[in-house]
Amino acid sequence: MTVYLASDHAGFDLKAALVAFLTEKGFDVTDVGPHDKTSVDYPDYGAALAAAMKADDTASGIAICGSGIGISIAVNRYPWIRAALVSDMTAARLCREHNNANVLALGERLVGIQTALDCVDTFLSTPFEGGRHERRVTKLSRPNELLS
Amino acid sequence: MTVYLASDHAGFDLKAALVAFLTEKGFDVTDVGPHDKTSVDYPDYGAALAAAMKADDTASGIAICGSGIGISIAVNRYPWIRAALVSDMTAARLCREHNNANVLALGERLVGIQTALDCVDTFLSTPFEGGRHERRVTKLSRPNELLS
Repeated sequence: MTVYLASDHAGFDLKAALVAFLTEKGFDVTDVGPHDKTSVDYPDYGAALAAAMKADDTASGIAICGSGIGISIAVNRYPWIRAALVSDMTAARLCREHNNANVLALGERLVGIQTALDCVDTFLSTPFEGGRHERRVTKLSRPNELLS
Repeated sequence: MTVYLASDHAGFDLKAALVAFLTEKGFDVTDVGPHDKTSVDYPDYGAALAAAMKADDTASGIAICGSGIGISIAVNRYPWIRAALVSDMTAARLCREHNNANVLALGERLVGIQTALDCVDTFLSTPFEGGRHERRVTKLSRPNELLS
């Protein structure tokens, strides 16, 4: 399974740690950037992650900024992305079971490294439950049809 | 200032508690629904919140489901919404200072009532910092221009 990673400058170090962690575990890892710690805008790298994942609907993604908030908003602008901002393993499990999340969003300044690694492990190993959740997840793909 | 609230069935009780809390504090509160605990789909109420807020760009919103994940994805589909899923006051502060978030997303099953009230207080009283954050926030409004 391919895992795509993107961040801004404030998420750069955690992204580097996760690239190493996932490569060691045998995942096919693609680092969408940035490739140094120059200040950048999280919406640009959120868009790059979404673009990379559009063509590969079995892929997973990880999106990181300082709080995780900005990049989680950015990637969820794209209807084929379901990004969950988490800070614990319970949320990392539920986002797969109930929401079929395909992107995990993390805040490097808010979550410590061991929590982040455990969240990533949980996210990548937990299956979607389907069932009653399927209809809700499908609705996330067509937001404009829901506006009254 | 008007505060719009929406949830699904799993966020219904926390929504009711926040409606009472904010009304007591003197906010103009609009409960977008649901109005009973019948099982519903969070994307429908996320869309209802976004529709209510579209015409009122000074308003704030609160979106709740069991984990906060599903409804945070749902509302962030709409480019005029900037929704932050939080579980602590630090994130509730940062989402205002850095991201000019206009919706706070909460998970009723993951966050206790006092934490939720403190997050809401922080969210509604913290100003946006502007400055270097302004350009990034503006980019969140035009996601399709960022796709390469």
